[in-house]
Amino acid sequence: MSGENIKDITAANAHYSASYAEGGLPLPPKRKLAIVTCMDARLLPAKALGLYEGDAHVIRNAGGRAKDALRSIIISQQLLGTEEVIIIHHTDCGMLTFTNPQLHDILQQRFHGHDVKDIDFLTFQDLEQSVRDDVEFLRGSEVISPHIRISGWVYEVETGTIRRVSTAN
Amino acid sequence: MSGENIKDITAANAHYSASYAEGGLPLPPKRKLAIVTCMDARLLPAKALGLYEGDAHVIRNAGGRAKDALRSIIISQQLLGTEEVIIIHHTDCGMLTFTNPQLHDILQQRFHGHDVKDIDFLTFQDLEQSVRDDVEFLRGSEVISPHIRISGWVYEVETGTIRRVSTAN
Repeated sequence: MSGENIKDITAANAHYSASYAEGGLPLPPKRKLAIVTCMDARLLPAKALGLYEGDAHVIRNAGGRAKDALRSIIISQQLLGTEEVIIIHHTDCGMLTFTNPQLHDILQQRFHGHDVKDIDFLTFQDLEQSVRDDVEFLRGSEVISPHIRISGWVYEVETGTIRRVSTAN
Repeated sequence: MSGENIKDITAANAHYSASYAEGGLPLPPKRKLAIVTCMDARLLPAKALGLYEGDAHVIRNAGGRAKDALRSIIISQQLLGTEEVIIIHHTDCGMLTFTNPQLHDILQQRFHGHDVKDIDFLTFQDLEQSVRDDVEFLRGSEVISPHIRISGWVYEVETGTIRRVSTAN
């Protein structure tokens, strides 16, 4: 497969840029919105949520965890004026399938003597609770203004549908 | 604007899910690929790079910094079998416009006594160097296998075009 991904991506990008007409968009998101969601390959946030170039920050990590996104959320709100956070976790998430000790054991076996023994992989056992936990984490943060709207959602990879778990304030 | 974003997003999602036919996709990315890029609103990775549901992990944070993505990259490679990382930073990035002390001062003014004084916001002064630095960071990590392909790119928000900065190994 060596080089196949780069060949495909550069070809697709040549097609995209040939009709690109968004060169003048400003840096701050037009919708004053940041979405925090999982890196999962089955999620295409722009397509599934109707986002266009310039609309919203999209922060993605394993699980869509708010704690891991805090650096980015601070920059989004304090420097680029976003006023709303939508957190979206999803069904069949890899984060439901392992624990910190299990992954630390794998790393220890494959990379003996590695220096990342203290990483918290932010796994969870209950999908909806993980969404509520992340909404609460941001709501309780000392660097998130009370006027920021925060809501929590689940995306169903089986149906392509989002449903609300935690209401916006 | 209260509620407008959620109204728009749920309407768009209803449209998306109505014709959704990807419910049976497996969790591991088909292309064995993870993309690390910025949260910037002007970037639509799937559209700009030709990614479909199930193709690739997409990890996004302020700047597209590899260090901040390491937790997710470890999970992507060790548990979900990806073998390639494509890092994409972009022109006109917000990370070029401020420094750690400046943002710490803003937080101090707005949230007196907050507890995030030790956050490194991972700003950079040179766009192409930031890409090379992140490729080197992963290449030097004790928990990234030598057989993982890593390349670094710049996306031009002015033209919608990607160009390579650091070659894949």
